Amino acid sequence: MAESIDRIEIPIRVRYAEVDPMGALHHSRFWVYFEMGRTELLRSQGVAYADLEREGVFFVVARCSARYKAAARYDDELILATWVTKMGAARIDHAYELRRPADGRRIATAETTLGCVDREGRIIAIPSFIHRP
Amino acid sequence: MAESIDRIEIPIRVRYAEVDPMGALHHSRFWVYFEMGRTELLRSQGVAYADLEREGVFFVVARCSARYKAAARYDDELILATWVTKMGAARIDHAYELRRPADGRRIATAETTLGCVDREGRIIAIPSFIHRP
Amino acid sequence: MAESIDRIEIPIRVRYAEVDPMGALHHSRFWVYFEMGRTELLRSQGVAYADLEREGVFFVVARCSARYKAAARYDDELILATWVTKMGAARIDHAYELRRPADGRRIATAETTLGCVDREGRIIAIPSFIHRP
Amino acid sequence: MAESIDRIEIPIRVRYAEVDPMGALHHSRFWVYFEMGRTELLRSQGVAYADLEREGVFFVVARCSARYKAAARYDDELILATWVTKMGAARIDHAYELRRPADGRRIATAETTLGCVDREGRIIAIPSFIHRP
Repeated sequence: MAESIDRIEIPIRVRYAEVDPMGALHHSRFWVYFEMGRTELLRSQGVAYADLEREGVFFVVARCSARYKAAARYDDELILATWVTKMGAARIDHAYELRRPADGRRIATAETTLGCVDREGRIIAIPSFIHRP
Repeated sequence: MAESIDRIEIPIRVRYAEVDPMGALHHSRFWVYFEMGRTELLRSQGVAYADLEREGVFFVVARCSARYKAAARYDDELILATWVTKMGAARIDHAYELRRPADGRRIATAETTLGCVDREGRIIAIPSFIHRP
Repeated sequence: MAESIDRIEIPIRVRYAEVDPMGALHHSRFWVYFEMGRTELLRSQGVAYADLEREGVFFVVARCSARYKAAARYDDELILATWVTKMGAARIDHAYELRRPADGRRIATAETTLGCVDREGRIIAIPSFIHRP
Repeated sequence: MAESIDRIEIPIRVRYAEVDPMGALHHSRFWVYFEMGRTELLRSQGVAYADLEREGVFFVVARCSARYKAAARYDDELILATWVTKMGAARIDHAYELRRPADGRRIATAETTLGCVDREGRIIAIPSFIHRP
């Protein structure tokens, strides 16, 4: 699925309960998909986010922005690309592109900034075993 | 809002993101409402569920069943009634009725059985300060 | 993925946003999974539920019940089995079993009864091209 | 609840199922709250969004951005302020501030741009009966 350690593409099929009365994937749901992209990007680098949390390392979303370009529908098969755009001592920026191969439409693009924190929410350095692009 | 310590009614307005492509409150969402009913029933008895969890007392759903009788729509104002039907040493049964005052329709009825557990998921006795009907 | 036209198994990985403060897959989320099971069971029989809705055939949940047996955690890989237990003129009953291959635990079992309705919610016969077990 | 026709404040209590394994309101859930803010802002101006949709007028989110400043917890009572910052022929910009009165913390701020479309998703002019700030 991954083409490289710095960028990953995953398939996601739109679930019925994720679609709103207009018949479109609700704009709140995209963030759940983007989080899945980050999980799989980490996994492709040999790190399970669940393990990180067990060791007291958490990533929290500090900022986000998105542009919604076309509606995704129930049962659509989408491809989500996720990659790291910048990495600091305690923060990491990702970008995302969600597209629908069936018609080549770009559904949405987005960016997030995550902060690395401990169990009490205090900022900590990103562990050195996390891949730097 | 409460009419007695053993039964509570709360108003809930259906959110846009809770409604599915058919225009109906999705059947998975009712359980979020029923959980709100339990939270408010406890609160009417002087107990905050958030405090219980901080003290290591958790309630987990062991069984549930529901009958869906009419569709609820976006922006509908509903009334949820929640009451305890049975209480054992470590389990508690609730019943629920969700109705729409605007047309008097019953939207759904349901029952749940919760088990009382500690942080590790082991069964424990329900604390004595929790009201027994 | 399917072993037969009458029963299907699909893999589902638990998403971060589906897990509650106790660290467990929230009991409301299982119904979203079960709906995915029905979608894939239909698809294995050559029918896309999205097409059915476009033609004015809808299935609505009339009853459901579940037993939750063990907690599923973030990032768990689960297997959901879905099969038809009974089919009438206008209703169809399914059963579900969700298990975790990693430790062989059964996470939950459930049953639903769906009614077949038209766009206005009136009961209609289940179309003859839908497979009867 | 409203202090004026151009800005509205609504109370929102954080639900259990909206909170993630870290114990924080999940970042995807804020958009559901912001949508509630828009619904109530419109209602304070005498317009029910549900009626708009029945007449074929839809608002879709084209862009959004948010900054998350502090974690909100289960059962927190929050206040969401929603106001219009700009209004064009077919688009409308809102801003949002979510805060927790108990400790005066600002939880998040956000902005959205909505486009006005018809049932087929074509851009249309915002109806004249919608209040212009």
